[in-house]
Parts: sequence; C-alpha cells; structure tokens
Amino acid sequence: MSLERCFGIAGTGTYLPRGIVTASDYDRLTGLPSGQVAEKFGVTQRHRAAPDETTSWMADQAARRALSEAGWEPQSLDVIISACGVMEQPIPSTAALVQRRLGLGDSGIPAFDINATCLSFLLAFDRVLAGFALKEWRRALIVSADIASAALDFSNPEASVLFGDGAAAIALEADGPHRRLAHVFRTYGHVADLCRIEAGGTRLRPADGIDRFLAGAKFRMDGPGLFRATSRRFPGFLDDLLGAAGVASSDLHCIIPHQASRAALEHLKRSLPEGRGKTLDMFANVGNLIATSIPFTLAQARQAGRLKAGELGLIVGTSAGVSLGGAVVRW
Amino acid sequence: MSLERCFGIAGTGTYLPRGIVTASDYDRLTGLPSGQVAEKFGVTQRHRAAPDETTSWMADQAARRALSEAGWEPQSLDVIISACGVMEQPIPSTAALVQRRLGLGDSGIPAFDINATCLSFLLAFDRVLAGFALKEWRRALIVSADIASAALDFSNPEASVLFGDGAAAIALEADGPHRRLAHVFRTYGHVADLCRIEAGGTRLRPADGIDRFLAGAKFRMDGPGLFRATSRRFPGFLDDLLGAAGVASSDLHCIIPHQASRAALEHLKRSLPEGRGKTLDMFANVGNLIATSIPFTLAQARQAGRLKAGELGLIVGTSAGVSLGGAVVRW
Repeated sequence: MSLERCFGIAGTGTYLPRGIVTASDYDRLTGLPSGQVAEKFGVTQRHRAAPDETTSWMADQAARRALSEAGWEPQSLDVIISACGVMEQPIPSTAALVQRRLGLGDSGIPAFDINATCLSFLLAFDRVLAGFALKEWRRALIVSADIASAALDFSNPEASVLFGDGAAAIALEADGPHRRLAHVFRTYGHVADLCRIEAGGTRLRPADGIDRFLAGAKFRMDGPGLFRATSRRFPGFLDDLLGAAGVASSDLHCIIPHQASRAALEHLKRSLPEGRGKTLDMFANVGNLIATSIPFTLAQARQAGRLKAGELGLIVGTSAGVSLGGAVVRW
Repeated sequence: MSLERCFGIAGTGTYLPRGIVTASDYDRLTGLPSGQVAEKFGVTQRHRAAPDETTSWMADQAARRALSEAGWEPQSLDVIISACGVMEQPIPSTAALVQRRLGLGDSGIPAFDINATCLSFLLAFDRVLAGFALKEWRRALIVSADIASAALDFSNPEASVLFGDGAAAIALEADGPHRRLAHVFRTYGHVADLCRIEAGGTRLRPADGIDRFLAGAKFRMDGPGLFRATSRRFPGFLDDLLGAAGVASSDLHCIIPHQASRAALEHLKRSLPEGRGKTLDMFANVGNLIATSIPFTLAQARQAGRLKAGELGLIVGTSAGVSLGGAVVRW
C-alpha cells in the first residue's frame, strides 16, 4: 500500500475577523490577575468574529482569495469540501452554504462536509488526493472556518483563551510538483469526553431543560487530560508516520502544526530535531482556530516561502475524538 | 475518467427505535382531522427514539449487526465513517462516539464524519470505494443514524409527519462481486434555505435570544418548493447518471431510493420503466430517515434478496443543500 499522492497548491486564502481581543481583555473576561493570560497561556491576542462574519461568510472570503491567487474561475471547480470544526448550522452542510456564497448555487458542483473537529482539513485533503489519484477531480477547493467564540466559557481559562476565530481555503490541483509521501490518522474514542460540545445536535435538546442545554452548548475541555492522552500516543504515532514516508525526523524542513496550545507546540518542537526553528507558530497572535488552524498555517507557510521545492514538510495535529493525524509532503 | 469501482457488502444491520407513533397519533399532534395524515401523506406509522436511544447508540446497534453478519472482528476495520443527517453533538465527530461504543476506543481505527444531510451515505460510500480502489482500506464500516424527532415542528404537518428515527450500518469490503458503474452528485446551494435547521451550530446562538434560538432549532422545510427544485433537475440528472454507467433505465432491476416523501417516491416510480414494481418503498411504515434512509433501504433490499448477481441497481436520492445524487451498481 502506497499513500504517495501527487498534487499542487494553486492558491491559498485566509480571513481573520476585524475584531481583536487582547490578552488584557482576556484577563478581565476570565477574572485572572493582570498579565496572567499572556504569561501562563502565551496569548497576545485573538481575532473574534462579529455577527456578520459567519462561518460560511468567512469561508467565502478565504475561498475568493484562494481562487483569485489560483487564477481559477469558480465554475471550474470539480468539488467543494467544507472542513470545519463546527458547522454553521445542522442542515444543510456548510459546503452548500459556501457554494452559494461563491456564486455557484446554480452550478451543480458537488459540495459536502468532512468533520473530524480540528483535523477535518487533514482528512478532506486526504480524500481529495484520493480523488486526484483516481482522476475523479482535477480542481478541488477545501474551506475551513471556525467561530470558537460562539461557545467559549471564560470561567475555564484554559478552555477559552486558547481559541480564536478565522477561516482558510486551499485550492488544490491534481497535477503539481508536490508529493504526499504518507498519511496517518488514528482515533481513540475512549477519551472522547475530554474535548466536547454536547448541545446542538440530536442528543441534548432545549426540551431537556434550558439551563442544561445552555451549559451543554459551551465548549468543555480537560486540557491536562487531553495533553496526557495525546502526548502519550504522539511518539509512536510520529515514528509510524515518518516510517511510512521513509524519512527521518532530521530530514524535515518545515513543520506545519495544528496550533493546539502553547504546551502542545512546545512539546512538538522538543520532539523534533531543530523543531524550534522549523515549526510555524502563530499561537500568540492567532491562537487555536480549531479545524482552520492547519490550513491557515499551511497558507501562511506558503506565503512565507517555506514550501521549498524538494524539501520535506510535516503537517501534524491532534483533535477532539481524540485523534492524531499527520502527513509528510515533499514540496 | 472511469468511476467503476469494485466492492463487496459483507454485512448490513439496521435498528428501529422501540417507540411507535401511529398515523392517528400524528393526526392529534398536527391537529389535522382524523385520517388525514394517512390519506394525505401516506403515513401508517414511524419509529421514535427514546432518550436512551441516542444517535451513536442506535448506530452501534446497527453496526454490531452488520459486523456480526460479516463475521468480522471489530478490530479488523480499517476505517469507520459516520454518515448522519445531524450529528449527535457538535464536538467530537459522531464517528468517534460510535467507535467508542463498538469497544474500539483504544484501537486507533480512523473515525470521521461525512455530511451531506440525506445523501451523506452516498458520499461516504463513494469515498470508501475510492479508498478501496487505491488499496488504502480493505474493510470499511459506514454508519448512519438519525433522530428526526429531535427537531420536528408539528404545526407544519408536511415538515414533520414524513420523518422517522432509525439507524443502519453497512460493512463494505474491497474485494467482492459488485461493481459501481457510475456516481453522480450535484449541489445547488441557491435553494439551500428550502430545507434547514438553523440553530445548533456557530451562527444562531442562545445568546441571540432564546425564543429565536428555539424557533431556529426546529426543522424547516418548504415541501412544494423542494419538490419543484429537485423534480426540475431530476430528469437531466438521471439521464447523466445512467449515461455515465452506459445503461438504459429499462435495464434497471432494483431501485433503492431515499424515502423522501410519498410524492417523491411516486415521481421516481413514474420516471422509470416498471418503476412501481422495482422500487423499494418503506415510506408508510418507516418514513424518511434522513441520511439513514438510503443505507436502511439498501440493507432491506439485501435481506429481501433483491441484490441479485449480475443485475443492475440504482441508488438515488435528494437532500438538503439542495443536492441530487445517485449510483448505478451491477450486483
């Protein structure tokens, strides 16, 4: 079984909401002593979406930039996949809403969602590369947009100040210079409760009592538990991913991680040779953008000229589920 | 570009909730004159999930039956995809919750969701067949479970009495006698508002006012508008699907449709030669199970011996989005 796949990145786009919340704003919101949010959590600021900056609206902004950079007519897309952490609304799929915003509502272009919380993009990317390998599609658009601020509970600083709002879009083409050498994705549902929003789907409903529902609509995270669960699995996972790609960790040039938390990023940097210099870290100013983190960081890496022809990149992260996922790419 | 894909169905499983709502119960719930729900909408009864029959619990029941029929150890699965209409909760993915219920929470088996409302299964099936063709996976489990009753508003009979609760699971294997000859999926986002649940995701939130939120948490459907939007596109879509498969509509032996409504099923039967005798119709007793409809009907077709070697089957449906989708299979 080879997971080697050929692809190109024709364009990338990002969008960050106009509104800014600073570390001192977070000190007030969480009731922590002044300076604590910056010091303890590594937060400088986050962007926060206004009511008009909806999930699909932000995704559309990012998508238009990606398509413009690619020089593609939107009508030339073969598929649109939305890969968000949380959907804009339960019905229909977020991808259908984005398709409409892109002016493609009458086009028939297939639009659907893939969801694995913070690793949604990685899985959408994997399924797109399969479609490319089978010549089903030639041009694919993956959009991610998240509004973490919709569900934050500031009485738990760790489960709130880490997260920011934003969007990213990647325009992928079947022919291109890049080679994905390996992809590994592993889910450990036994720790599913460590990271959750319980209300909003079929299980916890307003009819169950409005107070219970409102509590369930908040994001809950056991940060230390999650860090333990993922860091315990991480070394073996990384060995297997690099082994599947046939590369050594010292061969990696550029690390594009999910921006989970300062602790997770520091752990990653320590796990890899020269990890500190190779890892894109935008946690201080942008934060954990949920599913948008990885495509946002990928877009930033590309803009910064970090995807150098022939060099090796690692895309890697963890998500609610709990899942660990990553890809090794030769650019 | 060929979309021909090889696969086998190793096992199927279904689950229907214990609770039954009869047509006369619906007369009362909707305030319609006695006998109207049966006569006007073709409803005999629907199953309705109790609080303990959650989305992931029902999916687990169906999955265990499918795995048992397949004779597979759960640990032998390469991937678990949840293909529901509405998720159990926004975070984590429903697939991770099902993985845990299957006793696989420590297995690492990849688990994620694909969502296109009522056509989620069709897309998950398509992505699994791509994985089989590329030898990425040999054994895949797709689970669908829906609890329509969580969001029904009986003041709109058409948007409520059509829907039932239930679950289905299909255990798919890479090697097998079946050939999918063609797959077509088309999305028309310009009519996305015809079928929707607005509250529960990032856009409409409890903080926007609880009355507005509660109204938005109800399923809204413009039945006549949806029927017009889909039936207008349907003939061209069907021609393209059959054309891609290189078969004539008169060659089809068995039609496995999404059980959208009596009107949609009658329209389908009229659209196809001998459609009345060839179409599996479980609308009266089971209703529209959202994303579960198609895999449920597929499982029933298999149990009834309707997937005969060498014969041609059509899997077809419409969904919120609005999307039209279908596959032609030689069994």
